[in-house]
Amino acid sequence: MASFSKVLDTLKLATDQHLDELVEWLKIPSISSSSERKLDIQKAADWVASKLANAGLSVELIPTERHPFVYAETDPVPGAPVVLVYGHYDVQPVEPLEQWISGPFEPTIRDGNLYARGATDDKGQVLTHIQSVCEWLSTDYSLPLQIKFLIEGEEEVGSESLERRLPELKDRLACDCVVISDNSQYADGQPAITYGLRGIATYELSVQGPSQDLHSGSFGGAVMNPAIALCHVLSSMVDSEGRIQVPGYYDRVRALAETEREQWRKLPQTDEAFAGAIGVPELFGEAGYSTDERRWARPTFDINGLTSGHQGEGVKTIIPASASAKFSFRLVPDQDPGELTHSINQHLVGNMPKGVTWTLTPDHGAPGMLASTESKFAQAAKEAIDEAFGVEPVLIREGGSIPIVTRFQEVLDCDCLLLGWGLSDDNAHSPNEKFRIKDYHHGILASAVLWDKIGKL
Amino acid sequence: MASFSKVLDTLKLATDQHLDELVEWLKIPSISSSSERKLDIQKAADWVASKLANAGLSVELIPTERHPFVYAETDPVPGAPVVLVYGHYDVQPVEPLEQWISGPFEPTIRDGNLYARGATDDKGQVLTHIQSVCEWLSTDYSLPLQIKFLIEGEEEVGSESLERRLPELKDRLACDCVVISDNSQYADGQPAITYGLRGIATYELSVQGPSQDLHSGSFGGAVMNPAIALCHVLSSMVDSEGRIQVPGYYDRVRALAETEREQWRKLPQTDEAFAGAIGVPELFGEAGYSTDERRWARPTFDINGLTSGHQGEGVKTIIPASASAKFSFRLVPDQDPGELTHSINQHLVGNMPKGVTWTLTPDHGAPGMLASTESKFAQAAKEAIDEAFGVEPVLIREGGSIPIVTRFQEVLDCDCLLLGWGLSDDNAHSPNEKFRIKDYHHGILASAVLWDKIGKL
Repeated sequence: MASFSKVLDTLKLATDQHLDELVEWLKIPSISSSSERKLDIQKAADWVASKLANAGLSVELIPTERHPFVYAETDPVPGAPVVLVYGHYDVQPVEPLEQWISGPFEPTIRDGNLYARGATDDKGQVLTHIQSVCEWLSTDYSLPLQIKFLIEGEEEVGSESLERRLPELKDRLACDCVVISDNSQYADGQPAITYGLRGIATYELSVQGPSQDLHSGSFGGAVMNPAIALCHVLSSMVDSEGRIQVPGYYDRVRALAETEREQWRKLPQTDEAFAGAIGVPELFGEAGYSTDERRWARPTFDINGLTSGHQGEGVKTIIPASASAKFSFRLVPDQDPGELTHSINQHLVGNMPKGVTWTLTPDHGAPGMLASTESKFAQAAKEAIDEAFGVEPVLIREGGSIPIVTRFQEVLDCDCLLLGWGLSDDNAHSPNEKFRIKDYHHGILASAVLWDKIGKL
Repeated sequence: MASFSKVLDTLKLATDQHLDELVEWLKIPSISSSSERKLDIQKAADWVASKLANAGLSVELIPTERHPFVYAETDPVPGAPVVLVYGHYDVQPVEPLEQWISGPFEPTIRDGNLYARGATDDKGQVLTHIQSVCEWLSTDYSLPLQIKFLIEGEEEVGSESLERRLPELKDRLACDCVVISDNSQYADGQPAITYGLRGIATYELSVQGPSQDLHSGSFGGAVMNPAIALCHVLSSMVDSEGRIQVPGYYDRVRALAETEREQWRKLPQTDEAFAGAIGVPELFGEAGYSTDERRWARPTFDINGLTSGHQGEGVKTIIPASASAKFSFRLVPDQDPGELTHSINQHLVGNMPKGVTWTLTPDHGAPGMLASTESKFAQAAKEAIDEAFGVEPVLIREGGSIPIVTRFQEVLDCDCLLLGWGLSDDNAHSPNEKFRIKDYHHGILASAVLWDKIGKL
């Protein structure tokens, strides 16, 4: 008799094949930012499209101005929920190449980890859901829900095509819940469900002083030094306690719920260990909030880069002609990036020293996101992870931003599950990216169980 | 009958030869910072040594660890003053070469100017004194004082050999007054005597945060951003009015004399014209002081360079691992660079945000200098310039630093005359360096008259 246990048996027999297939996909250098990799991008899209088509899904490659979407769906199940799995087949660049122990596109196993660019971000993680669906379809036990896949090729370069095309794809992508595995567990041995992400707003500020570098002897004291002006105005944006001074910055910040603060207090991490791991003498941040609260659920200001004047060896006693900074904010619900740009402009008008001119250039912005931790989908995910990993997941937020998630919520009006199978030290975006093989198989299992649980809702 | 008018007649007949000789010297690319130019450095030293020897001076090439000094002297004149002329035969590098209209070592005349590297800094200016002495010696009219020449080859690279050897050369260089022409007139048509220079103290401050760049999403809010720490601490060093906040910074500052403030008020320059010339919307500086007062006689703080994090195109949302700044102070009498380093360290200890480590590296320092404007030498120079240029010189200070001048005053216990024949737009240290031919000839004439005046003291 067909039952879910048959799916589980099939899964367990196929672990070697699952790994082989991931290795195969990882060998394709689908670096989305590189125009030289256009063919490899297409190859990676074709690979996953074939995988899904061979399993019996109806598949379409949707062309865009840049890299195609792979869209696939299982048969509709009347009355049952519809889930959309989102992921991406494109990967980050690999530089600095000399720091890789094995080639980024020569997947290599060391110490139970599979090393390759894209291993965790995101080929390995999205493939867990594809494998679970394919195995399910290979049995005679019916999938108790409809699953749609949208696997894009521009995630690492800003998801522009998807952002633009989302409204017109609205009907096709219609679903009750989006499932995304493109992030991390809380810690080794502690899986998590991520129910919140921060938003982002990025800027470049350029301060112009004299028309060319001036001799600091002949002119020092006569003019405003643009590097000093820049330091003054950047300093004015955040006080020595880490509180941001841009007018109205905290007005819309949604407060942390007491329940989540309580849950996070139980998480097994100390400030000392955290500081030690990143090599700082002590942690720092806004008073009244724990480290996890500050990095997941409080808004921040960071300078990302400073440039001015003489940066080479030795001394050059000039008043530089200009100075510039790149800076960014992480936002929390319900802050609005557009409003922030307006406030920063106001703040700069009020705080920029005289004697210089300046330009503020916003780059990109996206609001923060918060999903329900009490939904039936969240409940199903808790149980699935508990069964697959043998550990109950913790409920966390993450400090990073995945702008497309907020857009899915807005356009598709759906629930959202962020189920990270990776680890925070998997080196996504760095040399020696890896994915723990055990986590890959646990992820496939958790995914299969999740479909079963959702089908029973 | 031998008289000074004979010297003047000789001078006037020789103007073509004076120019030809300067062109000859300027053709030698004596770039002191370039190890490939070692032979040219020697050639430039030999050229001036021959010029002086041919005129009858006793000449010695004094070898050093790097580039030789050319030392020469006329016969002693019992009971008369001794003057030491200091200058340098080395020149600045020539990059960016593509910005030169004619080759830096192919001296070319355009619009009454001689264009070449070293034209004003300092071959052209020091040669005025050499020519005047040579012409004087070519007549049968006796030079009424003893003149010594010290022409060095490391001025553009910090005068290290001279700094080190000055004490042992003390007896040989003994003099009543040092004469230096290595600076500028006040303005076109307005010659000047410069009686003050600012000192200097330069530093590099490096702030270290996490052991590597961190993702500003995952870590923003948890740690002090070293670029923010750097901006905060640099801002704390100077207030928005331009007053330096390092403890005790103004304690030893010698106040401006009311007489000099009065003299400077009469100088023909407006803030509007000054701002326009350097391309800033308005001037800026310490309240209560005029622009010339601020740049000549008040101490300053300038950031010379800033470096941190991502400086390329586009966005990289990191918390940079480190941030650094190069900064410098211009000092006035009687500030002490060593004391300042101590105070800055104290200030940094008190004002550096927590969560980062830092290192302050002092580079070089030298005190400011102030010469008498009432000395007999200053009086003689005023009359000489008036006669040669047809305009009475103004008495000014300059904001730049010539550390060796202070050392001459200290070691030789002598008076000092800074007689700039150049113009502030002569492009010293920049492409298209020039020296106005008229100013070269006026300088030779003023020098000849100066020896006559000093001889009559």
